[in-house]
Amino acid sequence: MRDAYIEELDSIFDDLAGICRRVEISVSLATEALMTGNAAIAERVISEDIEIDNARERVEETAFNLLLLQQPVAGDLRTVVAALRMVSELERMGDLSVHVAKVARLRVPDVAVPDEIRPTIAQMAAVAEDMVSRVSSVIVGRDVEAAIALGKDDEEMDGLRRQSFAELLSDDWTHGVEAAVDVALLGRYYERIADHAVSIANRIVFVVTGHKPRAVGE
Amino acid sequence: MRDAYIEELDSIFDDLAGICRRVEISVSLATEALMTGNAAIAERVISEDIEIDNARERVEETAFNLLLLQQPVAGDLRTVVAALRMVSELERMGDLSVHVAKVARLRVPDVAVPDEIRPTIAQMAAVAEDMVSRVSSVIVGRDVEAAIALGKDDEEMDGLRRQSFAELLSDDWTHGVEAAVDVALLGRYYERIADHAVSIANRIVFVVTGHKPRAVGE
Repeated sequence: MRDAYIEELDSIFDDLAGICRRVEISVSLATEALMTGNAAIAERVISEDIEIDNARERVEETAFNLLLLQQPVAGDLRTVVAALRMVSELERMGDLSVHVAKVARLRVPDVAVPDEIRPTIAQMAAVAEDMVSRVSSVIVGRDVEAAIALGKDDEEMDGLRRQSFAELLSDDWTHGVEAAVDVALLGRYYERIADHAVSIANRIVFVVTGHKPRAVGE
Repeated sequence: MRDAYIEELDSIFDDLAGICRRVEISVSLATEALMTGNAAIAERVISEDIEIDNARERVEETAFNLLLLQQPVAGDLRTVVAALRMVSELERMGDLSVHVAKVARLRVPDVAVPDEIRPTIAQMAAVAEDMVSRVSSVIVGRDVEAAIALGKDDEEMDGLRRQSFAELLSDDWTHGVEAAVDVALLGRYYERIADHAVSIANRIVFVVTGHKPRAVGE
């Protein structure tokens, strides 16, 4: 009985890591759609989000049944509760990549991001993707050091967000209101993906050590 | 023992309703700061958010201890798990009102919202505040009908968001990029507050009836 229980707890973490890898693909494809104005890729991100939603429901059911049938105590209970929160955040990250894909789709056959600001947005996307990718490893390996290191990338994201605002509010901006609004919202979506990555990493620290690394930025 | 347990479960809902009323005040004050350019009110929203964060932690502790010590089954377990999610969403709604207050503060002594678009933004704020206010009643009364009705307000919010985009992308928009970006982000913040209100209402429906009213919009 006890063995089956440990196995079930581990399988929740495998499922979380699997969802995280799906989110990584979703963020990556949404960025590709955004940067190339490719409607088919944008549609794929939007339509495949249901798989992340379904995977979330399965994790919730497993966690709920574990609480119901095994009545875990102390550390195990903390782990299950944390898993429920992490899966919500992963689903939300999927939704945010759908928002990016929808901005891309709205501007097809044009590209939403004007040339001058492409490097900044591409860098935000790269930081977000990298953080999601590293969260998968943090979940699989319950890696506290890697989790704490993730917080530093979040500072890079904040810097990029400020830079994007400086660019679109400068006198050199010639692309008008629509492109500026797109860029501001895209920045918000990538920033929120990064926030959730940090929050999940912090929850892993809490699960492993029993201590919160710092105020969780959610 | 059993009585103390029921009492504790009820007290979690009282706490959630109390946090919801704090969020309501926070949204209302943030809107006032935004519409008047009042820095002191914006600062108050920003500094008092810690009280919502602390109240969240207390609810999480109570719920965790309840899971640990009482090992609730079936409906009660569903209730405690739902409470953990609802308190996360309420904290997030508090954060979003802080974002509104920060936009207000950034533009002091000016007002971030240009005159022509004030009616639309004021209406978004009013819809969001009303939804938060009604969520408090839904939580207190476990009121399924009122919870389902909340979903309809969300459609009004979507319509207002589309309207705000139409206004700031029209040829009549003379306020430049900065004001447009402010308005687009403010719209996003109010929309997310509304989304969370609907999501909490849906969780109450699930707690009371055991069925999800529809896909939870989060």
